[in-house]
Amino acid sequence: MDSSITPSYKNVEIITIGDEIINGQIVDSNSAWIASFLNRSGFEVDKITSVPDDAQSIFRAVDSALGSSPIVLLTGGLGPTKDDITKHCLCSYFKTKLVFNQAVYDNMTGLFNKRGLRRINDFNRSQAEVPEACTVIVNRKGTAPVTWFEREGKILVSMPGVPLEMMWCMEKEIMPRLLNKVQSHPILQRYIWVKGYPEAVLAEFISDWEDTLPPELKLAYLPQRSVMLLRLTAKNNDETTLICLLETQLAGLRSRLGSAIFAEGVKTLEEALGQVLIKKGLKLALAESCTGGAVGARLTRAPGSSAYFLGGIISYANELKQQWLGVPETLLQTKGAVSKEVAEAMAAGVRIKLKSDIGIALSGIAGPTGGSAEKPVGTVFIALADNDRCLSRKFEFQSDRLGNIEQSVHQALILLLDYLYL
Amino acid sequence: MDSSITPSYKNVEIITIGDEIINGQIVDSNSAWIASFLNRSGFEVDKITSVPDDAQSIFRAVDSALGSSPIVLLTGGLGPTKDDITKHCLCSYFKTKLVFNQAVYDNMTGLFNKRGLRRINDFNRSQAEVPEACTVIVNRKGTAPVTWFEREGKILVSMPGVPLEMMWCMEKEIMPRLLNKVQSHPILQRYIWVKGYPEAVLAEFISDWEDTLPPELKLAYLPQRSVMLLRLTAKNNDETTLICLLETQLAGLRSRLGSAIFAEGVKTLEEALGQVLIKKGLKLALAESCTGGAVGARLTRAPGSSAYFLGGIISYANELKQQWLGVPETLLQTKGAVSKEVAEAMAAGVRIKLKSDIGIALSGIAGPTGGSAEKPVGTVFIALADNDRCLSRKFEFQSDRLGNIEQSVHQALILLLDYLYL
Repeated sequence: MDSSITPSYKNVEIITIGDEIINGQIVDSNSAWIASFLNRSGFEVDKITSVPDDAQSIFRAVDSALGSSPIVLLTGGLGPTKDDITKHCLCSYFKTKLVFNQAVYDNMTGLFNKRGLRRINDFNRSQAEVPEACTVIVNRKGTAPVTWFEREGKILVSMPGVPLEMMWCMEKEIMPRLLNKVQSHPILQRYIWVKGYPEAVLAEFISDWEDTLPPELKLAYLPQRSVMLLRLTAKNNDETTLICLLETQLAGLRSRLGSAIFAEGVKTLEEALGQVLIKKGLKLALAESCTGGAVGARLTRAPGSSAYFLGGIISYANELKQQWLGVPETLLQTKGAVSKEVAEAMAAGVRIKLKSDIGIALSGIAGPTGGSAEKPVGTVFIALADNDRCLSRKFEFQSDRLGNIEQSVHQALILLLDYLYL
Repeated sequence: MDSSITPSYKNVEIITIGDEIINGQIVDSNSAWIASFLNRSGFEVDKITSVPDDAQSIFRAVDSALGSSPIVLLTGGLGPTKDDITKHCLCSYFKTKLVFNQAVYDNMTGLFNKRGLRRINDFNRSQAEVPEACTVIVNRKGTAPVTWFEREGKILVSMPGVPLEMMWCMEKEIMPRLLNKVQSHPILQRYIWVKGYPEAVLAEFISDWEDTLPPELKLAYLPQRSVMLLRLTAKNNDETTLICLLETQLAGLRSRLGSAIFAEGVKTLEEALGQVLIKKGLKLALAESCTGGAVGARLTRAPGSSAYFLGGIISYANELKQQWLGVPETLLQTKGAVSKEVAEAMAAGVRIKLKSDIGIALSGIAGPTGGSAEKPVGTVFIALADNDRCLSRKFEFQSDRLGNIEQSVHQALILLLDYLYL
């Protein structure tokens, strides 16, 4: 093995393997995690490919990837069952055979004992059979090992597809080895949140600024429905130069956009809102009906959200809307649970109950059933109350259940954003 | 254009385009949706590829896909801004040029009027420029049109990457046209949920059954952490034959596994649990602290969940645990909010408050801060109370904030599953 690869060797192709990905049974979130993790260490992803648990498909994907990228990372297809064939394909590709590995077997025995599991059977034991012509790296979080192949100056690493195992292997075992091999420049990114501009209007407004960006910087528009996330990426130079270029260009953008920029440096809308809530010293409570907790879950994803998110009520049942949120029974009867009036009463109610500055409430029909001619599936009312007033909006989303819920969550955040800048 | 393609032409390659995918900024959920949607209509996905907004990468991906698959579906890179270059690449690939399309422009004007937006600028107007040598399909949900290319009996369709627009285009415009072109056999799938068997033990136990499956059927193990989802896929025959084969083999599996099968026919654990709760006539309430509503959101994803999920309390703040859930202040002081005792008191409290059969509560430290030597980040207590007793479990998850929340949600569902089969 050669011990160093030239600096340009920092491009990676990711291949994820599994029928469940190709059939749409699961969303391949591993690739995004790996890509983002690689980026932070200065690697760049050229391509992501997903293929089924099928020998020919895996073989071809590996061959094509090694033909164009110096580093190829594989996940998946390493389970103990018959549908997992990745290592057999790699043996065939690298013209080697499976051999028993005692360290992998010992790690497996240790995990089994720790988990209080039954005896190791032949299917488990087969996971300790590894390709001979590779470096075997024990996976301390699971039974399938990482295998690391090098050929003609290129690297191929096969790792398990279970997300937590994959993450551990990438962080603890694979990245340190990659960094040892590759001298890489960093890739720096800055995030800027802009409100009040549709994509094309914003693009026109900052067009001349964008046109004069130095070659090291690249701007991306990442619309989050009705707000815009701009990402400025800097690469192909040393860190000091890149930071300087970024700061200069960001200063230009800030003076151009002014208060339309409502947050910086965070990747999610909930974190961006969190910045504003902390700055204004406001606390928030929720009353969720059709979203069942999804708005709370979204807010909670932001680290430190307890500084402004007090909690809330998931009032799926009508009785809870009355009893817990003080929504008058007559209102529920005359207007219906899914109405402007009830959403506003819920928002006001939860604000008082939880002693928060702001109360936000959602009531709607996510579907697939429960709609009527007057209030079809997708009808959602979102209300926001503070000490003085109550804002509310009506939506008629056109999606399926999960889409309607997701859009409701987003629109609740947008209502909050609009309120904060009223 | 030829109007029919031979029956074998039902294989599809999906290409998703966007720097945000390749950088891991977003998870590509479009591919999974498209794959699943294609499967239901009898199409099969060979490969999914993601490439950056880069001309050479797009060109090569398109060329490689058309070299091996008769149908290629592209999403993304059709926005009005400079980083979106898909249609320019397609012009170069298909050796055609951009021309102004009035129908696309009229659709855009209509959408702008409906949304009350400002004037159409040059960036918007550029979206009405479409490749000349293709069929243009107006996208009623957005401004970027679908373009449909045919060459040498192969089909390439480029569609917008915004999920809701993509879904609408696939359902209303693209699929009907594909079905017109292709005579396809269906692909049928059955889902079986199994508890109590680690993957390898289950594989060994049903090994002889699996070995005798007819060639039309394929079994996949889809472990959902501690429970197993089996998927039996049937294809390459007519529908009646496939149904018959599936039912015969499922009967064999059912008699082998007996009560270890706890649900069938649904793809998610929350739907599987819903089946059991409905069968047993039990209603559920939640008290969530560290998960902030994520368990409720997960349960609510299942259509019809209002039949067994009453609602809950997101008691992020300690005060709410006392006031709303009746957790004694002394308990909070002596044991701490993150403790077995407080989780149990929360579960019992929410059950009484919401008059449900079962109360489930979670209290923990999701991170990244808030941990201590005694209770490190990732410590989570989950409790379940019914009229007679209270179960609780302690976990020490090793992940980051989002991972710890996700595992907490899963373990809450597993606790419920175990309780239902005690």
